[in-house]
Amino acid sequence: MAQLEYDTLSITDAVIGRLAECQDPRFKQVMTSLIKHLHDFARDVDLKGDEWIRAIEFLTACGKTCDDKRQEFILLSDTLGLSMLVVALEHARALKGRSGATPPTDATVQGPFYWEGAPELPLGADIAEGVPGEPALYSGRVTDLEGKPLQGALLDIWSGDGDGVYDMQRDGSPMRARARIRTDAQGRYWFWSIRPTYYPVPDDGPVGDMLRKMGRHPNRPGHIHMMVSAPGHTRVVTHLFVKNSPYLDSDAVFGVRDSLIVDFEQHEAGTAMDGRKMTKPYHVAHYDFRLIPQGAGA
Amino acid sequence: MAQLEYDTLSITDAVIGRLAECQDPRFKQVMTSLIKHLHDFARDVDLKGDEWIRAIEFLTACGKTCDDKRQEFILLSDTLGLSMLVVALEHARALKGRSGATPPTDATVQGPFYWEGAPELPLGADIAEGVPGEPALYSGRVTDLEGKPLQGALLDIWSGDGDGVYDMQRDGSPMRARARIRTDAQGRYWFWSIRPTYYPVPDDGPVGDMLRKMGRHPNRPGHIHMMVSAPGHTRVVTHLFVKNSPYLDSDAVFGVRDSLIVDFEQHEAGTAMDGRKMTKPYHVAHYDFRLIPQGAGA
Repeated sequence: MAQLEYDTLSITDAVIGRLAECQDPRFKQVMTSLIKHLHDFARDVDLKGDEWIRAIEFLTACGKTCDDKRQEFILLSDTLGLSMLVVALEHARALKGRSGATPPTDATVQGPFYWEGAPELPLGADIAEGVPGEPALYSGRVTDLEGKPLQGALLDIWSGDGDGVYDMQRDGSPMRARARIRTDAQGRYWFWSIRPTYYPVPDDGPVGDMLRKMGRHPNRPGHIHMMVSAPGHTRVVTHLFVKNSPYLDSDAVFGVRDSLIVDFEQHEAGTAMDGRKMTKPYHVAHYDFRLIPQGAGA
Repeated sequence: MAQLEYDTLSITDAVIGRLAECQDPRFKQVMTSLIKHLHDFARDVDLKGDEWIRAIEFLTACGKTCDDKRQEFILLSDTLGLSMLVVALEHARALKGRSGATPPTDATVQGPFYWEGAPELPLGADIAEGVPGEPALYSGRVTDLEGKPLQGALLDIWSGDGDGVYDMQRDGSPMRARARIRTDAQGRYWFWSIRPTYYPVPDDGPVGDMLRKMGRHPNRPGHIHMMVSAPGHTRVVTHLFVKNSPYLDSDAVFGVRDSLIVDFEQHEAGTAMDGRKMTKPYHVAHYDFRLIPQGAGA
């Protein structure tokens, strides 16, 4: 019965050995690596029994915190940098084998506030009517990596308001500051919304406790979400970040990329470049999206 | 703003760097290692976005499965060998720096069926009256590592019945097949219960789905739980396993140690060695517990 004996090291092979009958090669690969790293972690820190039970209690509390509007495990993944790592790995795969000088638009985390089915609005619409915040005109183009304009590309847009609060976080609120906009024949888009501000991720649950114990703040810099897609191209889920926003250098979910930081130019009240008459000051933000053709490389 | 840029590798240092203000050195150490291994895992398997969301959904389902009688995260830890690894690390720490030839009683997992406050019964009691299963007489001694008997050592005992079911798993059941027994002046203990049989861990939740996908069965070999303590000695939480039980070589939670497998001798009906008259056949199981003195080594 020697096969029953193992020590603090050989137990790992014993557990991995139980995958012998696994019929799904990818699942087997993922679980093998997971078991290896989980055990390595426990050995590296010489994990104590009372620490283990606190971890069990923490995970249980995360589960109990989840409901149809709150996803504490995604928040955990976000704040431990795992979500952004998975996004970066996806992005690297999409780029694999591709050569060429023009970088595509960087991806970043989707976050928990996407709401499917935002209204499709015409170019130039104000998607945030009545929402608190300073008005901002967003404009630019969607192109492929050669700079060829993509007509009819879809921008699915969402953001919090000027107080850092999303519609989903207000009980019974309808959709606000959300829209789907399509580019014109020249690949151009433009619309009005507000300039988003920084806000804390939900920190009244177990992940908030973890952040405090880690000595971290829960804040994200101001940003607007965009999911940009066009036929024959890889969809990119990304943000535009507000230049000079607080917390740009310490985003609680590690989502910031230099390439996604956009200057929100200040303009006096008057006629904006799209002809809209503004009775108060406004901002102008410009960004061109570059999508990766599907099947490029790989 | 170069500090914002990272790639799929350097993101790990960026996340660990956020622990700079952590005031708890041990928590900082544990979280640093956790982040490193979590990220290494994601990179090793080149984790896909759809796999990541399935993992989020799995953890959420585990949380939703937990209630006052069901702990799916402990089951997850058990079936991935983490619980037994933590037990083995604890055991190794208790032994650290100790020399000597006599090994102490091996520890194993506590499992989810411990129920605090079992009745204290006299030596020789039948702790499983009316419980289905074949009767068994358990006996032995509790000593220190030199073989010195420990008087008044406490054995906190629990097991499933002869059908492989624990009292806690039957709605509204009172405590059954549980007791606390104290050793006599010679460190001896003896009591009657049933011979436990193999049973499946709860496999109607997400962990059961995981086991099936891994190609594993959910069964544990027959065993009786004992938590043995005595003043001045390290408490041991362990099982005695039934020799020749099915699944001894593939315990779903990796709890088996050779040293804990006990022969359950078959006896004909008649007078047992403690004087009890048995009208049907019974088993006799013998095991001597050896406890580690506190402060030994380390």
